[in-house]
Amino acid sequence: MELVFISIALGALAIVYGFVTSRQVLSADPGNEKMQEIAAAIQEGAQAYLKRQYTTIAIVGVVVAVLVGVFLGIIPVIGFIIGAILSGVAGFIGMNISVRSNLRTAAAAMKGLQEGLTLAFRAGAITGMLVAGLALLAIAVFFWYLTGPAGYAPNSREVIDGLVGLAFGASLISIFARLGGGIFTKAADVGADLVGKVEAGIPEDDPRNPAVIADNVGDNVGDCAGMAADLFETYVVTVGATMVLTALLLGSMLGDLLLPMMAMPLLIGGACIVTSIIGTYFVRLGNGTNVMGAMYKGFLVTAVLSIPLIYVVMQYALGSVGTDMSTVLNAGTDMVQFTGMDLFICAVIGLLLTFIIIWITEYYTGTGFRPVRSIAKASETGHGTNVIQGLAISLESTALPTLAIVAAIIGAYQLAGLMGLAFAATSMLALAGMVVALDAYGPVTDNAGGIAEMAGLDQSVRDKTDALDAVGNTTKAVTKGYAIGSAGLAALVLFAAYTADLREFFPEANVNFSLENPYVIVGLLLGALLPYLFGAMGMTAVGRAAGDVVIDVREQFREKPGIMDYSEKPDYARTVDLVTKAAIKEMIIPSLLPVLAPVAVYFVITMIAGQSEGFAALGALLLGVIVGGLFLALSMTAGGGAWDNAKKYIEDGNHGGKGSEAHKAAVTGDTVGDPYKDTAGPAVNPMIKITNIVALLLLAALAGHGG
Amino acid sequence: MELVFISIALGALAIVYGFVTSRQVLSADPGNEKMQEIAAAIQEGAQAYLKRQYTTIAIVGVVVAVLVGVFLGIIPVIGFIIGAILSGVAGFIGMNISVRSNLRTAAAAMKGLQEGLTLAFRAGAITGMLVAGLALLAIAVFFWYLTGPAGYAPNSREVIDGLVGLAFGASLISIFARLGGGIFTKAADVGADLVGKVEAGIPEDDPRNPAVIADNVGDNVGDCAGMAADLFETYVVTVGATMVLTALLLGSMLGDLLLPMMAMPLLIGGACIVTSIIGTYFVRLGNGTNVMGAMYKGFLVTAVLSIPLIYVVMQYALGSVGTDMSTVLNAGTDMVQFTGMDLFICAVIGLLLTFIIIWITEYYTGTGFRPVRSIAKASETGHGTNVIQGLAISLESTALPTLAIVAAIIGAYQLAGLMGLAFAATSMLALAGMVVALDAYGPVTDNAGGIAEMAGLDQSVRDKTDALDAVGNTTKAVTKGYAIGSAGLAALVLFAAYTADLREFFPEANVNFSLENPYVIVGLLLGALLPYLFGAMGMTAVGRAAGDVVIDVREQFREKPGIMDYSEKPDYARTVDLVTKAAIKEMIIPSLLPVLAPVAVYFVITMIAGQSEGFAALGALLLGVIVGGLFLALSMTAGGGAWDNAKKYIEDGNHGGKGSEAHKAAVTGDTVGDPYKDTAGPAVNPMIKITNIVALLLLAALAGHGG
Repeated sequence: MELVFISIALGALAIVYGFVTSRQVLSADPGNEKMQEIAAAIQEGAQAYLKRQYTTIAIVGVVVAVLVGVFLGIIPVIGFIIGAILSGVAGFIGMNISVRSNLRTAAAAMKGLQEGLTLAFRAGAITGMLVAGLALLAIAVFFWYLTGPAGYAPNSREVIDGLVGLAFGASLISIFARLGGGIFTKAADVGADLVGKVEAGIPEDDPRNPAVIADNVGDNVGDCAGMAADLFETYVVTVGATMVLTALLLGSMLGDLLLPMMAMPLLIGGACIVTSIIGTYFVRLGNGTNVMGAMYKGFLVTAVLSIPLIYVVMQYALGSVGTDMSTVLNAGTDMVQFTGMDLFICAVIGLLLTFIIIWITEYYTGTGFRPVRSIAKASETGHGTNVIQGLAISLESTALPTLAIVAAIIGAYQLAGLMGLAFAATSMLALAGMVVALDAYGPVTDNAGGIAEMAGLDQSVRDKTDALDAVGNTTKAVTKGYAIGSAGLAALVLFAAYTADLREFFPEANVNFSLENPYVIVGLLLGALLPYLFGAMGMTAVGRAAGDVVIDVREQFREKPGIMDYSEKPDYARTVDLVTKAAIKEMIIPSLLPVLAPVAVYFVITMIAGQSEGFAALGALLLGVIVGGLFLALSMTAGGGAWDNAKKYIEDGNHGGKGSEAHKAAVTGDTVGDPYKDTAGPAVNPMIKITNIVALLLLAALAGHGG
Repeated sequence: MELVFISIALGALAIVYGFVTSRQVLSADPGNEKMQEIAAAIQEGAQAYLKRQYTTIAIVGVVVAVLVGVFLGIIPVIGFIIGAILSGVAGFIGMNISVRSNLRTAAAAMKGLQEGLTLAFRAGAITGMLVAGLALLAIAVFFWYLTGPAGYAPNSREVIDGLVGLAFGASLISIFARLGGGIFTKAADVGADLVGKVEAGIPEDDPRNPAVIADNVGDNVGDCAGMAADLFETYVVTVGATMVLTALLLGSMLGDLLLPMMAMPLLIGGACIVTSIIGTYFVRLGNGTNVMGAMYKGFLVTAVLSIPLIYVVMQYALGSVGTDMSTVLNAGTDMVQFTGMDLFICAVIGLLLTFIIIWITEYYTGTGFRPVRSIAKASETGHGTNVIQGLAISLESTALPTLAIVAAIIGAYQLAGLMGLAFAATSMLALAGMVVALDAYGPVTDNAGGIAEMAGLDQSVRDKTDALDAVGNTTKAVTKGYAIGSAGLAALVLFAAYTADLREFFPEANVNFSLENPYVIVGLLLGALLPYLFGAMGMTAVGRAAGDVVIDVREQFREKPGIMDYSEKPDYARTVDLVTKAAIKEMIIPSLLPVLAPVAVYFVITMIAGQSEGFAALGALLLGVIVGGLFLALSMTAGGGAWDNAKKYIEDGNHGGKGSEAHKAAVTGDTVGDPYKDTAGPAVNPMIKITNIVALLLLAALAGHGG
């Protein structure tokens, strides 16, 4: 139990870091009155949106909680509620930090690039550490309570179902938050661009645009709050699934080592919180002005330090240092034998995969490489060729990450079977604190630029915030690639949990998961369909809501002709309110798709071909979602980032620069990429997980675990 | 053997129909001298391109033939050569009919809409019947020779390998033809549009545009020759795979019924040739001007008549009419029992699926329904929203076809197991003659419009050709949906052949195809990656080649300033030559991807994890290609068609009509959709098949079938 306490302490450390750093950030200069006024409007809009979003989600959540309670009993409900509430809290805190740091970053950028970077990155780091810390605490404390005070065995059904319930709560909230926030941010962004830049011919973030506050609100509720909820979910599900799989596969064989092995993912998470905190202090410009380089320095320090620290905690947990671990931990499933050392190498594979995915994402979305430049070049011949080349890059960008994930799967599996995959996924997610820090930095600098523009600050300030913001597109793409890549591994772990559960609950079912079973093919096809349908709904929602924004702004321009010469003020709140309503309305049905589809597929196929085939189709559906979703999500997030940066590359003076025909084409590409990378693409990640978790819960419910 | 002779006779009937009808078409009025001059230029360009394309393919073909000979012996090589040559012939004839009918259709449209429709549809029907007839003859004659004069048993290895070789030849040529033609047609189309419509502000098909002849050549070599080769391949592979599966699964159990059962797919094909020929005579306008309705009338007659005729041939082949078939044919695999009646119902399921897919495609690409209209509406708010809505529709359009395919899989499998799937796929393909007729009609009317424009015919003629051409987008999308849908079924049949082969050749391998095997996941992921990578290469190739066209045309405008006032003539041949070289260069690497990938995956995984896992990963790769490819191809072909027709809908006077801002946005969408629907999307179909066939050949080679 001592190991769990250590994890809890390290989780608490992250919260302390967040608290201390947020004091520092909040004590920074908040800029002039004008800036504060604008920031207050953004803050108000963001809070109003999140309040309404979480109220709506709470209604769905209560219904689902009751269902979980009826079918699965009290412990899973408690888990569900903890997961749901903390996922919401993660999003809420992220948003709150973000809306308080944006104006301070703008103010800091008045002093210098380093000052702006420090402030914005610290703001991101707060969100990052709070997401990782809260996630770690949620699992560790719940696990401690169940196995300590409540007295359940670590591999008892209560603990397993409790952890699955926790994961379900986190996932359900995060899919709503990701999608609702994603629709909000892109509807506002696309709408503001269309009617502002394209129709009225006023620059981005111009205060005369009634949608400008909504656009800035969107950065906070989508790119920050939605992302934080998503990564919280990814962390909880991955770490939780690893613990569940340990209990299901190794439970009875491990003896005294069961508790340490189940605590190990928590310890790895704790260790990486320490290295992430250290890493944040290495994000410094040095002599140059290479913002991306500064970020990578921090990340590299974290990743490299994590290797020995993970080794140390594994040694500590599994036996005294110096003991030959291969004799101590020689437990295996019926297929593979592995040692603690093997698991350690798998954890390193996870770290390496993270690094490789970041590198590939940088290649596909950075302005310095072929992909972005090819899109910029294609913009010279018009809107059409820009979009064609962008789509080509989207498709292409799936290749290297897939090969890397495949290599990681093979490597981890060869070393330690399914447990190896689980540990690789866990160590990937252990870096979440640092990765979220890089990502949450983005909306802060984006907002800072907006505030600088609207407050009429000197162009030199805007230049600095632009420099800070330019890397934001890449870091945002990085997180999404990372989340979906880890989902690829986590889905395999969840599928293994599904089959293990199936064998335990329905030993007589004799389910045939072979590709020769047509119901497996049916499941794969239906699974692969889900992300397509989900993506279609997300894209349509953005298009529709953006259209509403355009109409509203046109009306405001007509009703208040003085807006253009600054004699009248646009009604920002009206647009924010409109987007809020649209986003909340549009998020419901797609979010329920992955919840209901597994249940529907199971019952329909069972009705037609019997329960065994129902289980087979449902299992195949889980893998179909990942096979279909991985490619769609990778292509959308990388493609969207590449389009965005191709526009930035042209704005830097290439291919004719701002205002040229190439630039207009690049703006179109950027607009297309927006819902790709910030709405449909990233929401595929929680969607994959939720499908898998619903399947696990369905099994438990069918087996009659009712309380 | 009598049954095979009947099939050969019916195949010959299709050729006779083609010959007689082509005499009719060629005797029609070829229009005035100007029209003939333009048509001659198109003809020359198309012939030059195809000559060069087939020369290049021949080099690859000879190398592959030698490899097939070395590893597999003489019979597969003969099959390969027959398949390859006839696939080329199908494309060549299609192109030749098309380039001779285009000007005659323009001339006929001068007389009236019905006259134009009759001529263009007859031209399509010639190609359709020749494709179906040649494909049927190729298999039937080869099968007759092997089982008759050569004396092999119908289920002998020689016959099976021969049929697989035949399918390989057809597939290999068709992937080159589809991709090369697809790159040519869209590079020319996009390039011509960009530099003509957008830059120079001259209308489509304007004779002053140096790329205009290349654009028209593209219709013939891509939409006609490439499509014909593709459907020839689909027919040969599907019918061949059904025969191979019959031999592998039922061979020894059927006794005297083996030959009739293997001949049955040929008979079904023959029966549908008869009904297709009858159907062609029902394509008439009646009183109205509903061109699409006229087409559907012909198709419906064919489909409805096919049901009783298939019943008759099945009765005839399996026993005298009136015999209770369930007693005669009560053979089953080790899993399912089925009767002749069950197989008949499966064949009807195939016909139904064809009908449903056509209906869904019409819904997603027709101007009368929500999807196209939503794109048209989204064009009002700009290029960006047009593309976003188009992408949303692309994604969405995969849902209904997938559900229909899944329902067909379940239905056919419940009735008659894998044989049921094979018969459903066969009856789908049996309608190929009629489907190709509908499709090949498209490039003829497209060219007719171009010729009318360039020859300066009266606007009323152009209006008629436009009316004829408008349905071309839908019929073209229909064929692609149909081809990829049938590929979904055929891939399952091919996978079944793979596993049956595996069990026969490597009984000790004990391959685990369960989803619980990570090498299966690895195979699925790598398989799903292939269409993405392939699509990326295709899209990039079009973008690059279109860029070359733009540069060439700009140069011509500069070198010959008199082009604009008609005082100088552009050098059409130069642009045709440029696109030819580009398309041929660009088609090689992507076409080899599906040939080499299965081999590479097998050897790499075998090296890492042993032969059993190598076989498992390879098998999973085959299904991964279909799971990934089905969605990509469906979304690309339907999305592209929808974009194209959204533009047409606006040009019909909606949302501001021609020249409006919405129209400009719709032109962008159309440009984006072009390589989607005519290059990357349709080429996925032969790609799926070729991957499967290469796997079958690899198994045979590994088992040491060498001659």
